[in-house]
Amino acid sequence: MGNCCDCVVNFFGRPKNTNVRVSLPAVCFVWQIAMIVLFGVFIRYDEESDAHWVEYKREHNVTDIENDFYFRYPSFQDVHVMIFVGFGFLMTFLKRYSFGGVGFNFLIASFGLQWALLMQGWFHSLDHTTGKIYIGVESLINADFCCAGSLIAYGALLGKVSPVQLMVVTLFGITLFAVEEYIILSLLHCRDAGGSMVIHAFGGYYGLAISWVLYRPNLHQSKRLSGSVYHSDVFAMIGTLFLWMFWPSFNSAITDHGDGQHRAAINTYIALASSVLTTVAISSMSQKKGKLDMVHIQNATLAGGVAMGTAAEFMITPYGSLIVGFCCGIISTFGYLFVTPFLEKYFKIQDTCGIHNLHAVPGMLGGFIGAIVAAAATESVYSKEGLINTFDFEGKFADRSPGTQGGFQAAGTCVAIAFGLVGGAIVGFILRFPIWGDPADDNCYDDEVYWEVPEDEETIPPVLEYNNHMIHKHQDISESNFSVEQS
Amino acid sequence: MGNCCDCVVNFFGRPKNTNVRVSLPAVCFVWQIAMIVLFGVFIRYDEESDAHWVEYKREHNVTDIENDFYFRYPSFQDVHVMIFVGFGFLMTFLKRYSFGGVGFNFLIASFGLQWALLMQGWFHSLDHTTGKIYIGVESLINADFCCAGSLIAYGALLGKVSPVQLMVVTLFGITLFAVEEYIILSLLHCRDAGGSMVIHAFGGYYGLAISWVLYRPNLHQSKRLSGSVYHSDVFAMIGTLFLWMFWPSFNSAITDHGDGQHRAAINTYIALASSVLTTVAISSMSQKKGKLDMVHIQNATLAGGVAMGTAAEFMITPYGSLIVGFCCGIISTFGYLFVTPFLEKYFKIQDTCGIHNLHAVPGMLGGFIGAIVAAAATESVYSKEGLINTFDFEGKFADRSPGTQGGFQAAGTCVAIAFGLVGGAIVGFILRFPIWGDPADDNCYDDEVYWEVPEDEETIPPVLEYNNHMIHKHQDISESNFSVEQS
Amino acid sequence: MGNCCDCVVNFFGRPKNTNVRVSLPAVCFVWQIAMIVLFGVFIRYDEESDAHWVEYKREHNVTDIENDFYFRYPSFQDVHVMIFVGFGFLMTFLKRYSFGGVGFNFLIASFGLQWALLMQGWFHSLDHTTGKIYIGVESLINADFCCAGSLIAYGALLGKVSPVQLMVVTLFGITLFAVEEYIILSLLHCRDAGGSMVIHAFGGYYGLAISWVLYRPNLHQSKRLSGSVYHSDVFAMIGTLFLWMFWPSFNSAITDHGDGQHRAAINTYIALASSVLTTVAISSMSQKKGKLDMVHIQNATLAGGVAMGTAAEFMITPYGSLIVGFCCGIISTFGYLFVTPFLEKYFKIQDTCGIHNLHAVPGMLGGFIGAIVAAAATESVYSKEGLINTFDFEGKFADRSPGTQGGFQAAGTCVAIAFGLVGGAIVGFILRFPIWGDPADDNCYDDEVYWEVPEDEETIPPVLEYNNHMIHKHQDISESNFSVEQS
Repeated sequence: MGNCCDCVVNFFGRPKNTNVRVSLPAVCFVWQIAMIVLFGVFIRYDEESDAHWVEYKREHNVTDIENDFYFRYPSFQDVHVMIFVGFGFLMTFLKRYSFGGVGFNFLIASFGLQWALLMQGWFHSLDHTTGKIYIGVESLINADFCCAGSLIAYGALLGKVSPVQLMVVTLFGITLFAVEEYIILSLLHCRDAGGSMVIHAFGGYYGLAISWVLYRPNLHQSKRLSGSVYHSDVFAMIGTLFLWMFWPSFNSAITDHGDGQHRAAINTYIALASSVLTTVAISSMSQKKGKLDMVHIQNATLAGGVAMGTAAEFMITPYGSLIVGFCCGIISTFGYLFVTPFLEKYFKIQDTCGIHNLHAVPGMLGGFIGAIVAAAATESVYSKEGLINTFDFEGKFADRSPGTQGGFQAAGTCVAIAFGLVGGAIVGFILRFPIWGDPADDNCYDDEVYWEVPEDEETIPPVLEYNNHMIHKHQDISESNFSVEQS
Repeated sequence: MGNCCDCVVNFFGRPKNTNVRVSLPAVCFVWQIAMIVLFGVFIRYDEESDAHWVEYKREHNVTDIENDFYFRYPSFQDVHVMIFVGFGFLMTFLKRYSFGGVGFNFLIASFGLQWALLMQGWFHSLDHTTGKIYIGVESLINADFCCAGSLIAYGALLGKVSPVQLMVVTLFGITLFAVEEYIILSLLHCRDAGGSMVIHAFGGYYGLAISWVLYRPNLHQSKRLSGSVYHSDVFAMIGTLFLWMFWPSFNSAITDHGDGQHRAAINTYIALASSVLTTVAISSMSQKKGKLDMVHIQNATLAGGVAMGTAAEFMITPYGSLIVGFCCGIISTFGYLFVTPFLEKYFKIQDTCGIHNLHAVPGMLGGFIGAIVAAAATESVYSKEGLINTFDFEGKFADRSPGTQGGFQAAGTCVAIAFGLVGGAIVGFILRFPIWGDPADDNCYDDEVYWEVPEDEETIPPVLEYNNHMIHKHQDISESNFSVEQS
Repeated sequence: MGNCCDCVVNFFGRPKNTNVRVSLPAVCFVWQIAMIVLFGVFIRYDEESDAHWVEYKREHNVTDIENDFYFRYPSFQDVHVMIFVGFGFLMTFLKRYSFGGVGFNFLIASFGLQWALLMQGWFHSLDHTTGKIYIGVESLINADFCCAGSLIAYGALLGKVSPVQLMVVTLFGITLFAVEEYIILSLLHCRDAGGSMVIHAFGGYYGLAISWVLYRPNLHQSKRLSGSVYHSDVFAMIGTLFLWMFWPSFNSAITDHGDGQHRAAINTYIALASSVLTTVAISSMSQKKGKLDMVHIQNATLAGGVAMGTAAEFMITPYGSLIVGFCCGIISTFGYLFVTPFLEKYFKIQDTCGIHNLHAVPGMLGGFIGAIVAAAATESVYSKEGLINTFDFEGKFADRSPGTQGGFQAAGTCVAIAFGLVGGAIVGFILRFPIWGDPADDNCYDDEVYWEVPEDEETIPPVLEYNNHMIHKHQDISESNFSVEQS
């Protein structure tokens, strides 16, 4: 028995081996081959992307421009940019983890979107007669959305996990996402086009729970690499701005054709603008000399977009959007100032990118804001048809009142958080097995571990010249010493 | 009296205090709250973004795809990228002002677009029955356009002003913009879809006039920071390219549906291509060894787009567009070579980004090119309906001839310049009050003043290692000296 | 006779003069003026971008939204970003050739697209009654595509040629492209919407052939500059990601309205995701400690998009797309590991960016994949109309069977490769004339040759401070030596 305990202790306590030469290729190959097989069995083109479209057009008396592709493709591409450049570059801010930030984001999103097409397909668009999933441009957007949950979780883990662990985080993250999304959108019949609940609240708490389980008491040993340098902060601004600019597309990508997409874009645009001003205000107030902190500008400015994820398609009114952005900019910046250090100290949650303040809390707030706005909906504001259209009060939900809808929206938010916390805790324990190649505590935030990092700048001639120059200078000093001595 | 003079001298001459901890948050909060109140009173969704759209569709017999959202949203997103990434990254070229370049651009554009929605709404789309402004996607594009004027002005002031001053520049810039736009587009009934006059000529001269009033005789004290470094020039190319690529969207974003948008995009695309070649030619010719200067490539290549702002929607013909780009590339590069130093020396105008050559002059030329092309319009080229459609010869302007239109276009250009110069001079004097937290002459172009700047690269291990290595080298040298001495 | 030989030897052997102060401006001006004249003679707006559109709409009973602009403009802008930011930033990876990578890409694409509008117009859309070329948004996309061929070739030559040589490469590249495209698309009636054959296979072999002729035996003298540094690799990721994200737009930009564009985007999206996983797997397996190589991530991840260029619009099925991406990621990464060094050593082909592995081979494979998928097409999968529609079996090709079409597709691939190899060899010999200002062997990969490069980082105060600090340290060391000696 004691032997067994020893055995377990030894198993979990053995020195870290970050060599992923077997595990990473194995995971990539096995999972990719599994994808090919499952796609072969399940995935087909839907009627708008199938060559039978010519017949479909004639039968349904529609024209080419009414293909859903033209309603959604521009938004899809904006969302795609947010997932790969937005999330990717936002995580390049660390001085020596830019390769890992942008590169692993690329890897896990590429895997995640494939698995998401399957998982979301099984839950939402499986045709029970044929047993097939039919995909179109909206499926691609949803797959990108689904990845976002796991990428948010990566934000909390940045620099502390191996790519193999990230693949595991994504596999379970996508799976959990599809289940909670099915419960929230289909069973509870919530509306959540921009995913305040299903993406941000879920993804945020999922990442925080994993990070809590993976707590590293000696992470301070990597402190030398945990900050940014000048140019890495500018790279991160690329991520921030592409997220910020395209957030209106994110929140409107899968809303209703016509007024739904139009209104969601306007509301998000307005809320984001408001977030920027309050973020700047709080950031400046928090520093003795009124200087701004790049961490706040890079992150808290986006809080308004997160918080509008549910309500953007509702008639929240333009000034309502401004108020949401106003409050969330403040809350998020305060989070970076006080809550992140507090969580680390007292809750043992190390949250590299501060996803608690950018995704978890604004996402949760967004869920409740959506609940309130839904509950306050009236026929005079929406029109009778508009109300049915906006909240999809059709079929077995035809009799639901806005008030009830509000209650279900709030319940949906709680479901998302619960899934994030419980799922994250379980995944965290899986990740503690010492087989995944994660770095030691004094080796975090370092690209050297998983990347061939090029030799550095100082080997470039102009600098070399300059070094030579310096060396000469020192020689002069030495020589002058020498001559003094001689005399 | 003398006392009073002293008092004034003391007031204006007191040492610079760059602490904006009170003023910046105050301005942000007060203005943002004002926005919320004014949005609450005035701003509503238009019929295409309101939930009543279902009814509107039925009444007007249109389908979802004819919602203006689908005509303009892709262009809107391109314009949005130009405003935030384009203008923002174009201003990252200074070696230590990249945070300020991209960050303050972010701040003032976010404020500006809110104020622009209101100002442009009051002048252009206030419904006098309800007293409300109804906004849709075209309003968002116009708000972004409106910001562009102030962001151009920021180009002249880059590195020399505080964020609080920039908020003031933007507040007045948006206000002046809305007034001059109303005069030019509504009263004079000019066409200016891409804003050669209302955006570029106005914004350019507005910035130059402010810079003239804020002349700093001792700016050379900050000379060490006034240039670029290798990587900051590469960052600036991100800005240049996103501006260059999306300029066809900028000039076509609010032109007529159908041929108007189509033609404006083609003309701008062609003119920009031509600008690149002449810019490269002049840049190479200007240097003894034929080397290219990044300043020219980053800026003058865009001159063709600025100059096509008015004429792009007209039948200027593809080769006409080429000629415009050809000439403006040359003129703009010459401006960077000769006019900017000349202005600084003899007119005391310090123009950090050279907006004189990229916006003021090409914008003015664009206005006059538009006037000429308008005056030359004939029914045989445009068709009768096309002429009415393109120049909007309807209502009380139904009888206007192309020739007259040309005259009004030219007058409009002069109005834009006058507004820029006079407005800029007044705003400049307001900015001279010593309460805005601007930096001292030896403290310009430095992010340290308003930003918490991270410690620099050399604290990173690989470099540290290398430094140790160097120290050892020098010890060796010293020791070898020592041994020489010993012998 | 011997004299003449000497003369020739002297002519080709004279020391390199990289001064392009005469040649570069001359080429830019002469060619740009030629463009203006030729545009004046030939290029006009098509009916969808002409002011007569109002009449056209009425006559053909269409509405504004059915203007081709709204079908293709979002894809056009994505392609435009790929050409200028994608290709441009992908070539910034070298430590001191980022200006040249992104700047010369900008120059030659801007020239190339003008020449392409003419060349493609003459071959594809010359109206023989009026003698004019009518252009619209699809022409702009095709012009961008046409440039891509030459930009791919630039990838093989990066750092080793002068801008004047690049202009020559582009002039001939566009010309050859238009001819081979005419043969492949019009005479052989192949389908190649995303250009696996006409763009990638042609461009890849064109660049390799030029590089073979321009072989530099002493290129190792520039070895100090042939690698990357940390931040240049991050810049290159901007290029990679924008290429990767927008590749679905590239392959769907000119496919059929409706299902054609929809299906091409889906297939490309899926193939690219698969490429990323196999690239990561092979990259990790190839290194002793399982570390990833940025060269692979930056390039081989894109191979799936290249290989889907022909087949994306066919009914290749989603799992077929996954398989294509799977294989091409592996093949391309193997290419970077083994084939590029092999080609350099045994075939004397110096391929800076490895276009052999990213464009030439995946493009060729893409051509053959297209041939197989075309040959396997059946009426049951496509529907009768769908088959006609997808393969354009109309007019004089109405009787062609899918099997025959497959044969022609394969033949088209061979034509593209032949054009690339022969054309590249000829252009290579033209470039060997010692009048083009190319750099010497010890001067390659260096921006200093053609650009005014700013002084470097270490002149910035924080670093200076640090240097002073170091100098003091060394003085201490010296002084301590001194005191030792004194004693």
